[in-house]
Parts: sequence; C-alpha cells; structure tokens
Amino acid sequence: MSHTWTEAVSGRTRLPEMSPDDIDRAQRGLTDRVLTTPVVRSEELDFLAGARLWLKAENLQRGGSFKVRGAALAVDRLAAAGSRGVVAQSTGNHAIAVALAAVGRGLPAVLVLPTDAPVAKQRRIRAAGAELVLAGSLLAERVAVAEETRVRRGFDVIDPYQDPDVVAGQGTATAELLAQVAAAGGRLDAVVLPVGGGSAVAGASLATRGTDVEVIGAEPAAVPSLSAALRAGAPVTVPVGPTLADGLRPDRVGALPFSLVRDRVRTVETVTESEIREALCTVATGARLLVEPAAATALAAALRIARASRGRLTDIGVLLSGGNVEHTLVAALLAEYRARPEPAPVR
Amino acid sequence: MSHTWTEAVSGRTRLPEMSPDDIDRAQRGLTDRVLTTPVVRSEELDFLAGARLWLKAENLQRGGSFKVRGAALAVDRLAAAGSRGVVAQSTGNHAIAVALAAVGRGLPAVLVLPTDAPVAKQRRIRAAGAELVLAGSLLAERVAVAEETRVRRGFDVIDPYQDPDVVAGQGTATAELLAQVAAAGGRLDAVVLPVGGGSAVAGASLATRGTDVEVIGAEPAAVPSLSAALRAGAPVTVPVGPTLADGLRPDRVGALPFSLVRDRVRTVETVTESEIREALCTVATGARLLVEPAAATALAAALRIARASRGRLTDIGVLLSGGNVEHTLVAALLAEYRARPEPAPVR
Repeated sequence: MSHTWTEAVSGRTRLPEMSPDDIDRAQRGLTDRVLTTPVVRSEELDFLAGARLWLKAENLQRGGSFKVRGAALAVDRLAAAGSRGVVAQSTGNHAIAVALAAVGRGLPAVLVLPTDAPVAKQRRIRAAGAELVLAGSLLAERVAVAEETRVRRGFDVIDPYQDPDVVAGQGTATAELLAQVAAAGGRLDAVVLPVGGGSAVAGASLATRGTDVEVIGAEPAAVPSLSAALRAGAPVTVPVGPTLADGLRPDRVGALPFSLVRDRVRTVETVTESEIREALCTVATGARLLVEPAAATALAAALRIARASRGRLTDIGVLLSGGNVEHTLVAALLAEYRARPEPAPVR
Repeated sequence: MSHTWTEAVSGRTRLPEMSPDDIDRAQRGLTDRVLTTPVVRSEELDFLAGARLWLKAENLQRGGSFKVRGAALAVDRLAAAGSRGVVAQSTGNHAIAVALAAVGRGLPAVLVLPTDAPVAKQRRIRAAGAELVLAGSLLAERVAVAEETRVRRGFDVIDPYQDPDVVAGQGTATAELLAQVAAAGGRLDAVVLPVGGGSAVAGASLATRGTDVEVIGAEPAAVPSLSAALRAGAPVTVPVGPTLADGLRPDRVGALPFSLVRDRVRTVETVTESEIREALCTVATGARLLVEPAAATALAAALRIARASRGRLTDIGVLLSGGNVEHTLVAALLAEYRARPEPAPVR
C-alpha cells in the first residue's frame, strides 16, 4: 500500500473533510506517544505585551518540536496498515519527527531536507537512525525527491501539510493549550501560530472551531505564504526571501490547511527579521526558553498584536513551535542583543 | 517586632527543630504564591547521563528561581505579624525573591548584594520596587549591612539559610518534584541540588526524610563549603575562588541547613568550572532551557554521578534552581561550545 496526499496540491483529489472530532481522536491516539508540554508564563513577557501570554512550550516536546504529534499519528496509521517504509520532505522539524516516530515503530524512513537545513536538524535525523537526503532549497524540489522514493521503493509519503492525520496531530497542541489554560482558571482571546505550510494554523482552526478564540497566523515578511493565499483566495507560490526562520520557508501553504483556515483566520501578522531576532532573545532572557526562529516569529507577532489591541486582547496563547536551533546562532543573537529596561512586576 | 535568625550562625540561639510537616505546611502556604514549575525530560540529556533525568525547571519560577518559595513564606509570616519592612542579604536570587514577595504584600524591602552581583539580578530588584545596597564580596560583609538595617530601621531580617520558613519553602521544590515524578509513573533514586548556603539541600533532606531517595549536593570546586563542613563536622568558612556560579558563592553553609543535611547527605559532588560551562550549554541545547551557572552545577554533578553509577542510579532528579543569568555570558559560552556527537534516541 502506498499513497500520497501531495496529489491534493494539484487539485486532482478532493480534500478530506475534517472536524473537531479528528482532534479528539488524535489526542486519544497520541497518549504516551508525545509529551504534555508545559504552558510557561513570564511576568516579564506579560509586561512587554501588556497582556497575559500563555506560552505553549513545544520546544520541550520530543524531537524538539510540535511536529512529532502529527508524525506519530501518521506513522502509527501506516505501520498498522503494513507500510514497508515512510518518506517525508520537510524544512527540518517534520522530518525529525517522522524519523523518530518511524524508527520507534521499526519502520525504515527517508527524509528529504533542503541543502541549507540547519546542521542541528540534519544531525538529529541521522542520529535517529533514518536516511537523510538533501535536495535543493524549494518545496517543489523536495516533493519531487520524495515522490521518486515513493515510486521506486514503495514507501508511503507523509506530507507535512496535506495529510489529515498530520493536521489533526498538530492541532492537538492547541487543544492541549486550551485545556491547560482552562485548568489554570484562564481563557484565551486568541492563539498565535507560526505559518510555514500551514499545518499548525489549520490544526488550531479545527481545535478552536465553535469557540470565540481568534486564530492568528505569524509569517516572516520574507515568505508571506498565508497572507498571499488569503489575498488570492487560494494557495499561491510566493518568492522566498532570506529569513532566519528556516522552519517557515515553504513557499506555499498546503491546500488542505488553506481549506481549514480560509474562513477562520482573519489576521496574519507579517514579521520582520529584526523582530524575529529580538523575539528569540526576549523569550530566552524573559522566559528562559531556547526556541528556534519559527517560534520566535509567533512570539513577535503576539507582542505586536497585544500592544496594538490596547487591552482588547488580554489573554493570548503562543505556540512556541520548536527549539531546534543552532547554538552558534543563539550565541550570535544574544551577543548583539540589548535588553530593554527591566519591567516592573505585573503583580 | 524585629528578629533575626542569623544569631544562629554564632550558636547563641538554639536551632529550631524541623520536620517533614514543615514542608507540608509550606506547600499549603504557597498555594497561589508560586508556580508549579514543570519537570522537563530530555532524551538527549538522558543519553548523555545513561539514566533518566527529571529536571525540575525552577528557572521558570516567578522571579526566575526557586528562592521565591522560601521568601514568600517568610514574608507572609512577617507581614501577618505587622512587620514594618524586611531586609535580606543574598548573592542575588534570594534578594530578588524577597523583593517580589515583599512588594507584593506592600512591605518595604532592602536587599544587600555583593558589589559584583550580576547586573541582571540587580536590575530585577530595582524593577520590583525595592531598595538595593551593594556591599563587598563576602557573606560577613553583607550580613553586617543587613544587621545595621535591622537595628537602624527596625526591619526584619529574612536570612537566606537560617530561617526555617525559608528552608521549608525551598524544600517544597523537591516535594513537588517527587510528586510530579510519581504522577508520571516514575520514582527517583536520587535528587541533586546546588549548594550555596545550603537551603536547597536542607529542604530536600526534609522533603525526602523517610524515603530512600539519596540527596546529593553539587558545589563548585572554587567554593567547597558543604564538603568542607561535612569533613569538619560543622560549618566552616572556606576560601572563595573565582567561579561562574555566582549563586553558589556563600563561603559557609548555614548552621540550620547543616543540622538537617549532616546525617542525610552522603555525597557531595565538587564540580569544575569547565564542567559548569559545558553543562550550561548542554541544558540549553539538549533541554532547550536557559539556566544560570548554579543550576548548571547541579546538572554537571548529576551527569557525573549517573555515569559513575554505571546503571545503579536509573532515575535522578535535578533542581534547575534558577535562570537569572546575563545573556552576554550565555552568548559567550554558547559561542565556544562544541556539541558532542548527536546521541541516538533513548526509545
């Protein structure tokens, strides 16, 4: 058995219908497969935002990112169906996640990354015991290599954006966050998620359906794939400028994610590189968490939105999507970082 | 009303009797005053240790360290008794904690730090709205200034090591860790805590009394205050060498902590500066947490103990005591850090 959801990109297959039930099912399927990551609060960040920020620390997740949620679910489905192996293309974290999940189930795995993927991400894939292939810098190049592996070796493709299990799995991060905030006696006005191929923001759209929680996408100005798609009414390929946020480099959002977010996401914040750099340092010094630039992109957007709302948004969830970052990059950013004046405590 | 526990240092007063009941009472008193910090697991650190490490992430605590536990308890006791203000000496974190706790209760606070205390710690105290005094580099110099403030202004001293509320409060970090590990279906063979004045290791000794959990102290080789005290059979003043672990610079352990640990702590690991530097980078890259050198000292000791035990110790708790570290120091350490080869996943 071998199939691929990437066909959906070209519109040749119909998009699967998805509902919040898929999130519930995903949560049950992921028990014992992923960590319940903490929600971190920081008085210093709250002060900077002028709002309460609820930081979902998926940088502390297995494999260093929330992507293991969708990958584990998809791998388990394929393993149960007798798959002979899996192949995935990714800017890094989905590949690490598939590698961990597949090797954990005894399945061979081939992962296709861009040639300039962070070395830390490449090392984690090799260390997991999976096969790594480097291919170009664009989504289409990686998809081609993955497709070739599918045809030649009979492996199943686990698409990072188009697979309903992946989208539902990623959505469990938001569902978990909502439950954790409620358990702490809070409630969210909005949740902010970084946008690459769109699986996080799509999963969040499902997980918040029927609530009044706003879903807000955060994208680097260098790769404005979601704002361009919303403007065009369909996924479009955007030119990719240089960005630190290696995890957000896909040059178009997936068709399945887009179908889930198009009526749900009204705000996409487009964040500059200097905002991303500063946010990465802010979360390190203010919340004592090491995150990758994609996660910093979400924090930068949250800070901007919170300030601009002038008190309308009092409680904002932020998906700190991952922590797979080169330590030399963190060193360089922290070295040039100038901390703001220390804030007064919130309470 | 004004009193001080520092008299106990000179043996003029009898040491208070303490029991595990004090920890229970402290936990009840701290509900809603402190965060329940997460216990972080990292497959990469487990691989390096050859054991399961349970990292109690008190770097994510209010005020950036576990010290707010004891400070809040002591401040609440004094506020209820009609205190006119509080004064505390500290290498930094206890002072930040007292400042936050006192200002939160509307009490004036004077904090005495060494002149070379990290700027980040000084800024946090001023930002809390408390008064900061810098005094020398030795414990005795700070104690003298605190004592003068007590006499002149009638403020109550909150001693970082000798106050039973402080010791009990710090012990709640270990009690909480034990409960969290049990809730996750685990159990600890040992818990490792950094040693400055000794309140953490004393609180842990109380919190683990009646269990078979080993309590292990971690001290920098530059300030071996606990190993010297255990050898001498009483607290002794040790010469202070240069160490990155600014939080562990007190040159003698307190008499109260010593009375609690002398029959309980059989192992003190004395850690080199290069181990501290490496551990700080290891926890940043492997567990995605920013910690201060004192916390890294505990991790360095845990890694060494785990490896040396050759599998005897399978589950080790580590108090990541705080995260108040200069970002420029983190930048410098990460810049020179050479990561070890990536480990294979544990499962």
